[in-house]
Amino acid sequence: MNSESFNNVPPFNNNNAIFMASKRTIKNCKVGLLGVPYDGTSCFRPGSRFGPSAIRESSNGIETYCPQLDLDLEDIDFTDLGSLDIPLGNTISTIRCIKNSTLKLLKHNLKPLIMGGEHSITTGVIEAMVQDYPNLIMLQLDAHADLREEWSGNKYSHACTMKRCLELLPSQKILQVAIRSGTKSEFKEMNKNKRLIPHTSGESAIHLKKALQQFLGTPIYLTFDLDWFDPSILPGTGTPEPGGFLWRDFAAIIDVIKEHNLVGADVVELSPVFDTSGISTILAAKVIRSLIMLLNK
Amino acid sequence: MNSESFNNVPPFNNNNAIFMASKRTIKNCKVGLLGVPYDGTSCFRPGSRFGPSAIRESSNGIETYCPQLDLDLEDIDFTDLGSLDIPLGNTISTIRCIKNSTLKLLKHNLKPLIMGGEHSITTGVIEAMVQDYPNLIMLQLDAHADLREEWSGNKYSHACTMKRCLELLPSQKILQVAIRSGTKSEFKEMNKNKRLIPHTSGESAIHLKKALQQFLGTPIYLTFDLDWFDPSILPGTGTPEPGGFLWRDFAAIIDVIKEHNLVGADVVELSPVFDTSGISTILAAKVIRSLIMLLNK
Amino acid sequence: MNSESFNNVPPFNNNNAIFMASKRTIKNCKVGLLGVPYDGTSCFRPGSRFGPSAIRESSNGIETYCPQLDLDLEDIDFTDLGSLDIPLGNTISTIRCIKNSTLKLLKHNLKPLIMGGEHSITTGVIEAMVQDYPNLIMLQLDAHADLREEWSGNKYSHACTMKRCLELLPSQKILQVAIRSGTKSEFKEMNKNKRLIPHTSGESAIHLKKALQQFLGTPIYLTFDLDWFDPSILPGTGTPEPGGFLWRDFAAIIDVIKEHNLVGADVVELSPVFDTSGISTILAAKVIRSLIMLLNK
Amino acid sequence: MNSESFNNVPPFNNNNAIFMASKRTIKNCKVGLLGVPYDGTSCFRPGSRFGPSAIRESSNGIETYCPQLDLDLEDIDFTDLGSLDIPLGNTISTIRCIKNSTLKLLKHNLKPLIMGGEHSITTGVIEAMVQDYPNLIMLQLDAHADLREEWSGNKYSHACTMKRCLELLPSQKILQVAIRSGTKSEFKEMNKNKRLIPHTSGESAIHLKKALQQFLGTPIYLTFDLDWFDPSILPGTGTPEPGGFLWRDFAAIIDVIKEHNLVGADVVELSPVFDTSGISTILAAKVIRSLIMLLNK
Amino acid sequence: MNSESFNNVPPFNNNNAIFMASKRTIKNCKVGLLGVPYDGTSCFRPGSRFGPSAIRESSNGIETYCPQLDLDLEDIDFTDLGSLDIPLGNTISTIRCIKNSTLKLLKHNLKPLIMGGEHSITTGVIEAMVQDYPNLIMLQLDAHADLREEWSGNKYSHACTMKRCLELLPSQKILQVAIRSGTKSEFKEMNKNKRLIPHTSGESAIHLKKALQQFLGTPIYLTFDLDWFDPSILPGTGTPEPGGFLWRDFAAIIDVIKEHNLVGADVVELSPVFDTSGISTILAAKVIRSLIMLLNK
Amino acid sequence: MNSESFNNVPPFNNNNAIFMASKRTIKNCKVGLLGVPYDGTSCFRPGSRFGPSAIRESSNGIETYCPQLDLDLEDIDFTDLGSLDIPLGNTISTIRCIKNSTLKLLKHNLKPLIMGGEHSITTGVIEAMVQDYPNLIMLQLDAHADLREEWSGNKYSHACTMKRCLELLPSQKILQVAIRSGTKSEFKEMNKNKRLIPHTSGESAIHLKKALQQFLGTPIYLTFDLDWFDPSILPGTGTPEPGGFLWRDFAAIIDVIKEHNLVGADVVELSPVFDTSGISTILAAKVIRSLIMLLNK
Repeated sequence: MNSESFNNVPPFNNNNAIFMASKRTIKNCKVGLLGVPYDGTSCFRPGSRFGPSAIRESSNGIETYCPQLDLDLEDIDFTDLGSLDIPLGNTISTIRCIKNSTLKLLKHNLKPLIMGGEHSITTGVIEAMVQDYPNLIMLQLDAHADLREEWSGNKYSHACTMKRCLELLPSQKILQVAIRSGTKSEFKEMNKNKRLIPHTSGESAIHLKKALQQFLGTPIYLTFDLDWFDPSILPGTGTPEPGGFLWRDFAAIIDVIKEHNLVGADVVELSPVFDTSGISTILAAKVIRSLIMLLNK
Repeated sequence: MNSESFNNVPPFNNNNAIFMASKRTIKNCKVGLLGVPYDGTSCFRPGSRFGPSAIRESSNGIETYCPQLDLDLEDIDFTDLGSLDIPLGNTISTIRCIKNSTLKLLKHNLKPLIMGGEHSITTGVIEAMVQDYPNLIMLQLDAHADLREEWSGNKYSHACTMKRCLELLPSQKILQVAIRSGTKSEFKEMNKNKRLIPHTSGESAIHLKKALQQFLGTPIYLTFDLDWFDPSILPGTGTPEPGGFLWRDFAAIIDVIKEHNLVGADVVELSPVFDTSGISTILAAKVIRSLIMLLNK
Repeated sequence: MNSESFNNVPPFNNNNAIFMASKRTIKNCKVGLLGVPYDGTSCFRPGSRFGPSAIRESSNGIETYCPQLDLDLEDIDFTDLGSLDIPLGNTISTIRCIKNSTLKLLKHNLKPLIMGGEHSITTGVIEAMVQDYPNLIMLQLDAHADLREEWSGNKYSHACTMKRCLELLPSQKILQVAIRSGTKSEFKEMNKNKRLIPHTSGESAIHLKKALQQFLGTPIYLTFDLDWFDPSILPGTGTPEPGGFLWRDFAAIIDVIKEHNLVGADVVELSPVFDTSGISTILAAKVIRSLIMLLNK
Repeated sequence: MNSESFNNVPPFNNNNAIFMASKRTIKNCKVGLLGVPYDGTSCFRPGSRFGPSAIRESSNGIETYCPQLDLDLEDIDFTDLGSLDIPLGNTISTIRCIKNSTLKLLKHNLKPLIMGGEHSITTGVIEAMVQDYPNLIMLQLDAHADLREEWSGNKYSHACTMKRCLELLPSQKILQVAIRSGTKSEFKEMNKNKRLIPHTSGESAIHLKKALQQFLGTPIYLTFDLDWFDPSILPGTGTPEPGGFLWRDFAAIIDVIKEHNLVGADVVELSPVFDTSGISTILAAKVIRSLIMLLNK
Repeated sequence: MNSESFNNVPPFNNNNAIFMASKRTIKNCKVGLLGVPYDGTSCFRPGSRFGPSAIRESSNGIETYCPQLDLDLEDIDFTDLGSLDIPLGNTISTIRCIKNSTLKLLKHNLKPLIMGGEHSITTGVIEAMVQDYPNLIMLQLDAHADLREEWSGNKYSHACTMKRCLELLPSQKILQVAIRSGTKSEFKEMNKNKRLIPHTSGESAIHLKKALQQFLGTPIYLTFDLDWFDPSILPGTGTPEPGGFLWRDFAAIIDVIKEHNLVGADVVELSPVFDTSGISTILAAKVIRSLIMLLNK
Repeated sequence: MNSESFNNVPPFNNNNAIFMASKRTIKNCKVGLLGVPYDGTSCFRPGSRFGPSAIRESSNGIETYCPQLDLDLEDIDFTDLGSLDIPLGNTISTIRCIKNSTLKLLKHNLKPLIMGGEHSITTGVIEAMVQDYPNLIMLQLDAHADLREEWSGNKYSHACTMKRCLELLPSQKILQVAIRSGTKSEFKEMNKNKRLIPHTSGESAIHLKKALQQFLGTPIYLTFDLDWFDPSILPGTGTPEPGGFLWRDFAAIIDVIKEHNLVGADVVELSPVFDTSGISTILAAKVIRSLIMLLNK
C-alpha cells in the first residue's frame, strides 16, 4: 500500500497477512522477509505458490519466543515486505525479477530471507548475493541434489538449481548437506568434488560443523529446501523423499550456524495443498522464526 | 504498511494478499473491502478466521469480468484495505472496533464491504451504518434465523445477530430471505412480523423483488451468511444446512438488487478449514466480485 | 448401561452419543432409533460401520424444529436405543440378530428406525416387519436396483437386498423409486413388474403419490439408501452415482408419505470416511429427524 | 506390453488399469480410448496428469449398462489403449505427439476418445481430425472461453485452446456451449461471431439442438472440459467456476448428440488431487461411458 | 440410560460408543473413564469437543493386550461412564461441573481418567483431587507451559491451566515435563522455580525418574496435553508444535510412572477435525489404554 | 494386451500404469512384480485394493537410483506384470489364484515380488514358494502377530496369515521381526517358540542379523506388512499401530538382507484411501525399489 493512501485510515494493519511480530517499517531493520510465490505452473491452485501466505497465517500459531536461542521476535528488527508480483510464465524473467528485488533489499541493508515458491527461485537470489559478497559460502539443506544440467528442456527448473549455482560460485564454496536422493552421476559428481556432507548416524550437524570451521566469519548463504525434513513432519511438499530429518537435526544445525556469519537464506518447496493437517506449514513458520534470529546480527 | 516506510522499495505489491484488481489507493474509490477475521475462539486454527485471506488468494482463480453484469473489476474504483487486528476474546470490544472501522470507511466515502469471520460481526457494522443512513433497509441471506436473545450466555453470539439488529432497526425495515432453519419461536416471530421472504418454488428472488418495490432508492444493506447456499456448493461453513440455494438463485437476487441503492454489505461464515476441495472459497470470491460491482454506483 | 449400575452416579448422560432430543426411557415412546454399524468387512476403519455414531454427533448441528412439518423433536416421544453389537463376519447371523432386535422393538410398540450400516441389513428388518404387518408395503429410495441374485457368492450382499425382499413380499407390494443404476436385466425385470417409479422431469414425488394412492392406511416401510441423493449433496457413500436427487426432492416425498401410515424405516450406506467436509452426515441427520416425525403417529 | 513377451504368461490382465469392459484387442473395435496424462508442470504430483488412471480405477464403481441409452458396454467393441508417454516440458512436441497418435487411431478405424490431462491437448487431436474430416464440426462444453491469444507467453496454454482451434477450423464450424467465464473481449468475440450457445433458463440443450440441426450427418467432434459441470458435482478440477451444470443437463445434451455423427471426443481437466471425496472421478467415468456409446456407430 | 428404562430390551449395548473392554457396571471398578467434550466455542464442528467419541470408536482398532505392561484390559475392572453434558458458554460453570463430577467419581472409589476436550478442563479436576489428596503431586506432559495469567480476558483459558493449578498446589508439587514452547517469562518462571524437567538428549524420562524419586508412594496426578507428542505422530491437535516426542518417549515415561502411585489423569487436546488420516486418534486410544492399566492398582 | 493386437500401434506404452523403469518383456528378467489388488470387501472404494496402482503412479516421484545400494533400476532386468484379476468374494479361490500365478512366475524364473492388497494374500504365495524352495526361510516385518486361528469365522483373514504359514513351514523357519501388537496368547506362543526378533533399543536389525547368520545361502522370503512402519511415516494403512519403525530401521534391515539369498517378497496393506498426503504411497514405492534390487541376483 503506497504512501499517498492510508495515512488517515488507521489501523488497518492486516496482521494476518504478514509474519508475526514484523515491524511495519524498514527503518533500523536488519532482516527483510520476502515471499516469492512462484511455482512455474499455468493453473492457479496446486503447488508452492501458496507457501508464503500460508506460512504467514500459521506463524500466529507459534510463540514469538525461541527457547533454544533464548531470543524473542518482538525484540528483533525485521520486516515482512510482502510477496513479489511474479511475471508468470517466463522462468528467465522471473529469475531476473528475483535478482533485482534481492539487490534492492541489500541496498537497504536488509539481509534477505526469501520464502518460496519452488527451489528454482534460488538462482536469482544467488545472482544478487555474489555481487555484494564475492567470497560467499553456500549451504544447501535438501533431499535432492538438484544438479541436473536441464530438466524438460528448462535450464532453470527446480531440478537444476544447484547446477546453476555452480556456475556462479566455485565448487569448493558450496556445501550440500546430507542429500539423500539423486541420479548416479549427481552423487558421483558431488562426492568427487567433496561437496556432500554425509549423514551417517544422524550426525550431519557434526560433519557440517567440521566442514564450516575454515569459514568462520565468511558470509554464508543458506538455501533450505524443506523436503530435507522427513515426510512425516513435512508431508506438504511436491516431492517428499522418505528417510529425512527431524526437528532436532535442524536444531543441531542452528547451533552450528549461530557461530557463523549468515547473510541470507531462502526456505522453499512448501506446498500447502498437500499439507492436509497443517503441520508442514507450522514447521516452516518455525524455521523462518529461527532464521530471522540467526540473520539478526 | 505506513507511509514513512517503503517509498523507495518498489515493487513489493503483494498481490496475493489482496483481492484481485484492487486499487492501491483510496483516492476516487467508492468501495472499501475490509476483512474481519473474527471467529470468537481461543485456539488458532479452526473456523472462519481464515476466511478473508483464503478469499483473497482464491480471487486469482476467477476472471475480473462478470458476464451477467457486463462489468470488469479492472474498470471499478475499489480498494482492499486488508483485515482488522481484532482484540481477541471480548466480543463487545470486537463489535465496537468493527463499528469504529466502518465509521472510518464511511468518512472516506467508501461503501463498506466486509468479509467475515462469523456472523456476529454484522452487529458492529450496522451500528455504524444506521448513523449515516437513518432509514436503512437491511436484507439477510441466511440459512438460519439468528434471532435468539442469547446463546451460551453471550448476547453477541452469531446465533443472535438479527435479534441485535432488531434493536437497531425497526422490524419492518428488515427482510429475511428464505430462512430455512430455526426454532419454532423464531419462525413464529418472523412470520408474525412478516419479515420472512418465502422460498416456495425456488422463487425467492421474485418474492424479494416484490417486497423491495416500495424501497426503490432507499439505502439497502445486505448481510450474506454464506450458509444460505446449499452445502453442495458451499460445504466450507460452520453449520451447513441441507436444502439451500444454488448460484442461479443468487444470480436472480443480483438482478433484483442492481435496481436498488446498495450502500453496504457483509459476507460471512466461510470456514476454509472445511472447504476440502476449495470450491466454497472460490464461490465466496465470486460473491465478493458481484457485490463490489453492485456497490459501485 | 444396565440397571444395577449407575443409579447413584448422575448425571453422566452422554448426550453426544445419542441422537439429539432423544428421551432417556422407552416409556410412552412410539419410535425406537437403533444403529446397526455393519459393513461386512474385516478391517476396522473404512465404510458405513461408522455411520450411526457420526449421525448422532452431527445431529447437534441442526435444529430440533422442522419448518416443513412444523414439528419439534423435543415434543416427540422417541428414544435412541444405541447400536447393536454385531457378530462380525457371518452375514447370515447378522441378519438374524437384526431380525430379533427388530422384533423386540415391535414388542415394545416402538416403530423401528434403523441406521446402517450397509443396505444388506434391511433384509433382517423386513423379516421381522412382515410378521407384524402381513400386508406391508415397501418403498425403496435408492440409486441402485439391488436385485442381483447373488454378489461375489453372497446372497445377502448389499447388491441383493431387494431380491431378498422380493422373497418376503409380493412384487406388487414393493415400489422402487427413481432407481437410476443397474444391470440391463435388473431394469427389464423392474419395468416388467411395474415396480419402478420413474423420475421424468424430476417429478418422482408426483408419480409416487399416484402409485401410493391405493395404499392409504396400509402399513408402509421405507428403506432409504442414501446414495439416492446426488453425490454433490451426499458424497460420503460407498458407490456414489451421478444424476441423483436434491433435498427438495426428498421434501416432496415427505409431503407424500405424511399422508400415509409409515410403520418403520431404515437409512443406510452413509460412509463418513468419504465425507470429507461433513455435509453428508448432516444431511443424514436431517433425514432421520424427518423420519422420526413421520413415524410418530 | 509388446507381442514377444507374455504369450505364455496368462492371465495377468490388469483389469484395474484399463477402463471397465474394454476389449483386449483392436480387432473389430470402433472406438479407441487413449489417455494423455499431460499437465505441463515440472513437479510430479499436482494436476490433471493423474486423470486417466483415476478414471480407469473408478470405472469399476459404476455399471456397464446405461439406462438412458439402453446400451451395455459389454456389447460394444471398444478398446482402452492405455496412456501416452509424454515428452515432458515442451508443449509443442507434446501437441505433435498427440496429433501423431490420433492419426494412428484413425488409420486403424478407431474413433478417438481422449482422456486428459489439460485442455491444451485438444489442439493436437484437432490437427489430426481435420485431416480425415475436412468438414468437421467442433463442439465445446466448457466453463471458460479459452480464446486467449497466449497465456504466460505460451500459445499452447490451456487458456488458448479454442483460439488455436479457430486457426484450424472456420469460426462458423465451432459451437461453444454455455460458456460462463471469460474476459470481456472473449465474450464480445464469441457473441459477434455467434459461436456461443446461450444457457438461459437451463435450456442449453434445446439451443444446441437448434444450432446443430443444419449439421445432421456432418462429422462432429466434442471437446469436453469437465469444469463445464458445476463445482458441486465436479470439485476435482483446476479452475472450478460456480454456476455450472448438473448431470441432467449433460443427459439432455446426450439426447441431442445421439442424433448426430460423433466421430471423436476428448474429456479433460479432471484433477484427482482436488477430488477429496472421489465423486468427480466417478462422474468423469460415467461421461466416458456415455461417449463410448455415442461414438459406437 | 437410566434404570427404569431398558431392563427388558437387551442387548442394545452400543459397544461402539464406549471404550473397548469397559465393564458395564461400576461395581468393583477401580478406574472411571469420563469424557468432557468441551472446547469452549460456540460453533458446532471444529475442535476437541469430538475427542472422546472419536477415541472410543478408534479403541476398537487396537488390541486389549499391552506387551509393555503385560496386561490385558479384559482383566481390568474399569468402566467408561460416557461423557458429560456441558453447560455451554460459561467456562466457570463448566469448571464447576467438572469438579462435581470428579468428586462423584472419587466418592465411588473410581480413580478418574478424563478425556478432553481442551486443557482448560484440568482445573476442575484438580479442584476436586486436592480435596481427597491434600499432598497431591501433579505431572504435566505438554508442549506449552500454559502459565499465562489470562488469555483474551479469560482466566480459565487453556493457555492458563497450569497458572490456575499453581493456585491450588504449591509450586514444588508440580512437575512440567519437557515443555518446549512458551513466552520468555513463562520459561523464566518455570526455571526459577525448578518445575521444568528438561529434555536434553531425549532423556526426559530419566530426568523425570530422578525428580520423582522423593515422591514414592505419594499420590500423583498426570495431565497429558497430547501436543507433547511430535506433530508427525499426532497432527490432530489445535496448536501442534514441532520438535515433540515419539511413542518410545512415552513408553519410557510409563516405565517411570508404573513405580508410583498414580491416582488420576486426564488426556486432552485431541482434535479429530485435523486428524485427516486417523493416526492421532488411535495414538490417543493407546495412551488411554496405558493409563487405565497404570491407574488400576 | 495380447499379442495379436498392437504390433502396429506404437507407442502406447502406458508408463504411468507400470512401475518406473520396468522392462517391457520377461526375457532375461529375474524379478517379476505382480499386483494383487485384493481387500476382501464387497464395496468398491475403500481399502488396500488400490495399493498396486497407487504405488505404480507414485514410483515416478522418486529416482531410479538408490544411493544406499549404489544400484540403478534402469540397469536391472525386472518386469512389472500388472495386476491379477481377482475372483471377488471367495477368499479360498483367491488364495488358489495367487498360488497359481506365483507358480507361473517361478516357472519363468522370475522371483516374485507381490504388491497387495491385504496380508491375507501371502498364504497363496507361500503355498507356491514351498514347492520350489522346500527349505524356505520366512521373514515377517509387521506390527501385528497375525497368529489368530480364525477371525470372524474366516481362517484366511489377514489376522490369520502367519498361523496359516505355520502350517506350511516349521516354526523355526519363520522369523517375526519386532512385532509390537497382538493378543496375550499370540505373544506367549511367539516367545515360547523363539520366533520373535525383539526391538529393544531400536536395534532389531542387529538381532535379525544374528538370527539369520545360520541361514546364509538359504532361500529367504520376506513378507512386509507396511504397518511395521510408524504411523507417522505410513499413515495410509488399515490398522496403524503407534510405536513403529522409521526408514533408517528398514535401511538397516536392507543391509542385513543383502548378504542373504532373497528369493521372493510381498509388500502389503497400503491403503491409499487413508494416505491423505501421499507420503505412505511414496514410501511403499521406495520399499519396492529396494526389494527389486535385493531380489536381482
